[in-house]
Amino acid sequence: MTNVLFAAGDKNWDSYQTPLKQAFSAANLDIDLRQDHDPAETDYIIYAPSSDLQDFSPFRRCKAVLSLWAGVEKIVTNQTLAQPLCRMVDPGLTQGMIEWVTGHTLRYHLGIDDNLASQNGEWKPKAAPLARERRVTILGLGQLGQACAKMLAGIGFQVTGWSRRQKDIEGIICLSGDAGLKTALKTADILILLLPNTAETENTLNAETINHLPKGARLINPGRGTLIEDAALLSALDTGQIAHATLDVFRVEPLPQDHPYWAHTKVTVTPHIAAETRAITASEVIAENIRRGEIGLPFLNLVDRGAGY
Amino acid sequence: MTNVLFAAGDKNWDSYQTPLKQAFSAANLDIDLRQDHDPAETDYIIYAPSSDLQDFSPFRRCKAVLSLWAGVEKIVTNQTLAQPLCRMVDPGLTQGMIEWVTGHTLRYHLGIDDNLASQNGEWKPKAAPLARERRVTILGLGQLGQACAKMLAGIGFQVTGWSRRQKDIEGIICLSGDAGLKTALKTADILILLLPNTAETENTLNAETINHLPKGARLINPGRGTLIEDAALLSALDTGQIAHATLDVFRVEPLPQDHPYWAHTKVTVTPHIAAETRAITASEVIAENIRRGEIGLPFLNLVDRGAGY
Repeated sequence: MTNVLFAAGDKNWDSYQTPLKQAFSAANLDIDLRQDHDPAETDYIIYAPSSDLQDFSPFRRCKAVLSLWAGVEKIVTNQTLAQPLCRMVDPGLTQGMIEWVTGHTLRYHLGIDDNLASQNGEWKPKAAPLARERRVTILGLGQLGQACAKMLAGIGFQVTGWSRRQKDIEGIICLSGDAGLKTALKTADILILLLPNTAETENTLNAETINHLPKGARLINPGRGTLIEDAALLSALDTGQIAHATLDVFRVEPLPQDHPYWAHTKVTVTPHIAAETRAITASEVIAENIRRGEIGLPFLNLVDRGAGY
Repeated sequence: MTNVLFAAGDKNWDSYQTPLKQAFSAANLDIDLRQDHDPAETDYIIYAPSSDLQDFSPFRRCKAVLSLWAGVEKIVTNQTLAQPLCRMVDPGLTQGMIEWVTGHTLRYHLGIDDNLASQNGEWKPKAAPLARERRVTILGLGQLGQACAKMLAGIGFQVTGWSRRQKDIEGIICLSGDAGLKTALKTADILILLLPNTAETENTLNAETINHLPKGARLINPGRGTLIEDAALLSALDTGQIAHATLDVFRVEPLPQDHPYWAHTKVTVTPHIAAETRAITASEVIAENIRRGEIGLPFLNLVDRGAGY
């Protein structure tokens, strides 16, 4: 019997209890999972910073602290933490992003909003062009950008990807640098923002860069709220330079009720749902790490304490 | 010189004249393409049911009737038709169907309609489950059904396919027969109809079969209007047995303005746009079949008159 302490808050306990038990069972692990193990008898800790647990020193026999979060900046500096620390790399988060981005890209491509608004009895058949006639640009070719680019290219879209450093991905036109950004924007019938949030990427879409887009481009932002200069986007929606925007992330979340995005007829607001750590897939990663720990294999996603991630 | 009669209406003539001539030229075929050949001297007929031509008996030397439509139910019963009949299997049509079906499946999967209806300033994050937790059933595993099944499985959905004759497709749970149909319906969170229109498939979705679906299933019909018993579907929408239906094909098209589907809040009507024959790719298929006919090779997509498709 392996004792696993769940120290990630009551809310997570509700979501994770069942999937964790299923994942342990599927991995043939005999585990006593609880929110209240004796520190001296705890073998593993499943952790989130929302937990009360801040002092790891009594957990002398604990083989690893397994974070439910991808970002470990709130725990890696904890001086009492001597145990190996693993961050969460959830394949479900990437998969969810692929599904969300593909769904909204096809929504724009097929003109589904127009279909929904045309239930008045008028029969006006007009099929969408094929995806191979539609140009999609993704800004950002990290883990998420690449995964989305490959799926959209697989469906048939003409996909261009832009990143700060030049990438080379089969089936994707890869561009980089300032000149590359201009080209990437010029060919974007549908523009998808998946850049990280850094000082360099702030306001990537601004009054100047928006003008490189073809008139009537569609915008999808599941990346970061800071990538967009909001006033410039609102102005471009009003002139028709951007025909429609679907925004999942914002500078302030929840997006304030009086923010103009909510009421704008050319904006769809979604409440930061494109990428979420999934209890089922994350539980499988936790189970795999415990399985590894029990048979002496190296842990997955082990944090380099010196580098901080 | 081969005489090819274009009997598919003036509107199609406008779209097809140029791509057909280009395709004939690319295939090195010496063809006199016209809308008015003498029946006795006609070698091939390019056909659509919109044509005035209904009596095929005078076309004694005609080697094949080449339909521009995938569905041949309006012509296969024509008693005057003794010539081989080829249905259109247009790679562009298949691709368009894949894109339409994938877009509407993801629309249901992600709850996009709910997102569009929730622009009131309330921030209620609730991500969709992953596609692997969503069961999609496709009735019909012909060219179109198989292509859609593979794409949806590639995105991650649990895909079950049902066909009259048992098929075996990697990554798809393939079922057949009456018992198989019941199982296929029982596991359909999203049900997609892609059966051909035959006497056997009429009213496949009826008051009895609808009850095999899980409560709140979603329905997508890009196949044929006759597959659905309309009164049974309307009743199932009212009880909530079916949560929503997206219908692209109907028993009468254009769908009459006073048909209850138009006004129903749980129905999205689209005007037969899911699958459109694309003139460029279809012309290449026509040219290939004439090339085959001229050198005695078997025709592509020859209709089995007994089976009706």
